[in-house]
Amino acid sequence: MTSFVENSDLTDFSIYNIPFGVAIFNQEYIACATRIGNIIIDLATLYDEGYFENIEGLEDNVFEAYTLNSYIELGKPITSKVRERIQELLTEGSTLSKDQRVIETCFFDMEEVQMMLPIHIPNYTDFYSCIEHATNVGKMFRDPENPLLPNWKHLPVAYHGRASSIVASGVNLHRPKGQMKTSDQKNPVFGPSQQLDFELEMAFVTNKDTELGSCITTAEAEDAIFGLVIFNDWSARDIQSWEYAPLGPFLGKNFGSSISPWVVTLEALDLFRISSPPQDPEVLEYLQYTGDKNFDIQLEVYLQPENADENLISQSNYKYLYWNMAQQLAHHTVNGCNIEIGDVYASGTISGPSPQSFGSMLELTWKGSKPIKLTDGSERKFIEDGDTVIIRAYNQKEGKRIGFGEVRTQILPAK
Amino acid sequence: MTSFVENSDLTDFSIYNIPFGVAIFNQEYIACATRIGNIIIDLATLYDEGYFENIEGLEDNVFEAYTLNSYIELGKPITSKVRERIQELLTEGSTLSKDQRVIETCFFDMEEVQMMLPIHIPNYTDFYSCIEHATNVGKMFRDPENPLLPNWKHLPVAYHGRASSIVASGVNLHRPKGQMKTSDQKNPVFGPSQQLDFELEMAFVTNKDTELGSCITTAEAEDAIFGLVIFNDWSARDIQSWEYAPLGPFLGKNFGSSISPWVVTLEALDLFRISSPPQDPEVLEYLQYTGDKNFDIQLEVYLQPENADENLISQSNYKYLYWNMAQQLAHHTVNGCNIEIGDVYASGTISGPSPQSFGSMLELTWKGSKPIKLTDGSERKFIEDGDTVIIRAYNQKEGKRIGFGEVRTQILPAK
Repeated sequence: MTSFVENSDLTDFSIYNIPFGVAIFNQEYIACATRIGNIIIDLATLYDEGYFENIEGLEDNVFEAYTLNSYIELGKPITSKVRERIQELLTEGSTLSKDQRVIETCFFDMEEVQMMLPIHIPNYTDFYSCIEHATNVGKMFRDPENPLLPNWKHLPVAYHGRASSIVASGVNLHRPKGQMKTSDQKNPVFGPSQQLDFELEMAFVTNKDTELGSCITTAEAEDAIFGLVIFNDWSARDIQSWEYAPLGPFLGKNFGSSISPWVVTLEALDLFRISSPPQDPEVLEYLQYTGDKNFDIQLEVYLQPENADENLISQSNYKYLYWNMAQQLAHHTVNGCNIEIGDVYASGTISGPSPQSFGSMLELTWKGSKPIKLTDGSERKFIEDGDTVIIRAYNQKEGKRIGFGEVRTQILPAK
Repeated sequence: MTSFVENSDLTDFSIYNIPFGVAIFNQEYIACATRIGNIIIDLATLYDEGYFENIEGLEDNVFEAYTLNSYIELGKPITSKVRERIQELLTEGSTLSKDQRVIETCFFDMEEVQMMLPIHIPNYTDFYSCIEHATNVGKMFRDPENPLLPNWKHLPVAYHGRASSIVASGVNLHRPKGQMKTSDQKNPVFGPSQQLDFELEMAFVTNKDTELGSCITTAEAEDAIFGLVIFNDWSARDIQSWEYAPLGPFLGKNFGSSISPWVVTLEALDLFRISSPPQDPEVLEYLQYTGDKNFDIQLEVYLQPENADENLISQSNYKYLYWNMAQQLAHHTVNGCNIEIGDVYASGTISGPSPQSFGSMLELTWKGSKPIKLTDGSERKFIEDGDTVIIRAYNQKEGKRIGFGEVRTQILPAK
């Protein structure tokens, strides 16, 4: 396939992608959107122009909305058809390619558009599904000889996070303040976090409301997943380490999490399917699955000091997850917990086996003991005020490139 | 004050209460409601009849809704006036008392009404704020000589819970299934929980959306709290103990939590204000407060086996909380975490000092080692299939009674 939109072929947003997001056009009009190359397309107006006719189940203009939820709710059979229709419309020689009036109305350059948080998120769960990350943390904080807790290989460990403080790429965050206590301090102190960190994660978004008491099996799970985003699970390590026992992370995490503006569908990512790492010991029956359930997606983290260049500080891959999405969702619902449309389920930090592929400053600098040298001559143990962290995710196979763009967040001084 | 509604004086829903909820009237019509004695009042129709005229800021019929959120959003100055207006209208000799047509339209007997979940809950947090409970758990699972963790007296420990699975009183729950492993088992097993438990809690509901990055001080906190409900934080102890390290409770909790249908306002509870227990060591400045911030509310838990009588199994009191609501909300937001309208913040299990006042089966039976004898001759270590757990909350002072009614849940067999 080739698109009539020029120079889109080898971008994250090639004709093989067709992601979904929500855009503010010309600072005044909000609608659901897709992107090809550097062009953002207003889907609500495209709908009104009749380009989505004859898609059964798409009777209303669900793109005329501030979130993707109503669109996602249509379910996979319909959203798959919509994506295919958009793909056809953007192909060279299509009816749309010759409809200059509609192109002028619906196609926008990036400078004319601001991207919003794409979904209303009723619930947010964060998994801890990468064995390299769990091993690194266990080595640093528990027992270097025996870093994984006994439950880790039997179930995808997870906790509930704060949905209210998930923000879109481009929304800057203030350094959080909080209570901290190091082992050599007698009493806790209050102040800005001194160990602010990012966490390189991906997250999936669900497309249905289920009833309390019902389960989703590993075989059913992917039908309930609309797509994925990049997820930066900001963490204040000093606040977290003092507060987290015995009930888990709280203020060390809930000051903000950042997601990329484009939800890339599971259909687009099909190209990158691969098998998951072998699981030993064998998992319980409800966690078993068939088929390739992991995805080969290259992940990159950049740190950009204020008024300086981007520094590539980590290269990882989504394929390093020990527990896949199907297992995560089957586990989450096996007790009857219900899911909702727009829920976000993050992977946990994705670290690869080499030190250059670790997914947090905590691991990259090994608790601050090995600072990272940046091209402007400065060093980092953790994230400093003014720093921007950028995470990118993409891959290319058989000449087809699909990516997520980026999630970008600058850290501002504590208020 | 005396109400013209007969026999309402010494009920939980006396004229001094005026709680808010959402009701289905005659199985067909849904609206916000209040209750006096055993009468449920349709506030949406009462509004249409002109009884809320001249309340500045109440220009729309916010009672015509499936949740209280739009009403709560009006904020304390307006919701306080609405409550006072209802109180006047229900007083002996009021205009409404003589308006037989409107009374017939808006007043319903309990049998004609079903109560719904009163609020849409964007976020749910569970604190761990009762020192007796934390001490009991610490004694059982950690060190009997040193049961509290070092952070406990310095900050109100909390974790994020699952908002999607909070249900109204009367919604029955199936026993959850899950992964469990006792210390004498080599591998985990899957099946219905064998240690299903309730947790006696209260929860407050917030009335505003704040901006990410802003804080609520202890002095501002009560203005952001609309009212309280009874909260039963159902827990599967065997699932929880295997999964919870290191990130806290997850499937052991998120299969369901039950709340009472009536939100009792902070204004109504003013009558029961008392000082909180002294805090030693002194807390950090952002957790300090002035005034009486605790409440004397009697709490009772009943266990009713199928086709048998209710057994009173615990008598506790909300006043036993070490950390009060103002401190909880100040702590939750001190890192800039934003709150939303309708958020639910639960207290954690409220246990008193005596064994008869413990707020969970775990504590009442001391991990199952001291079963409770019931009046039908049976014994309980934990909750069995068919059992109904009922929690009631109320108090009476100066001849004025105010209560929450009850939260009632039957446990059905695992699916």
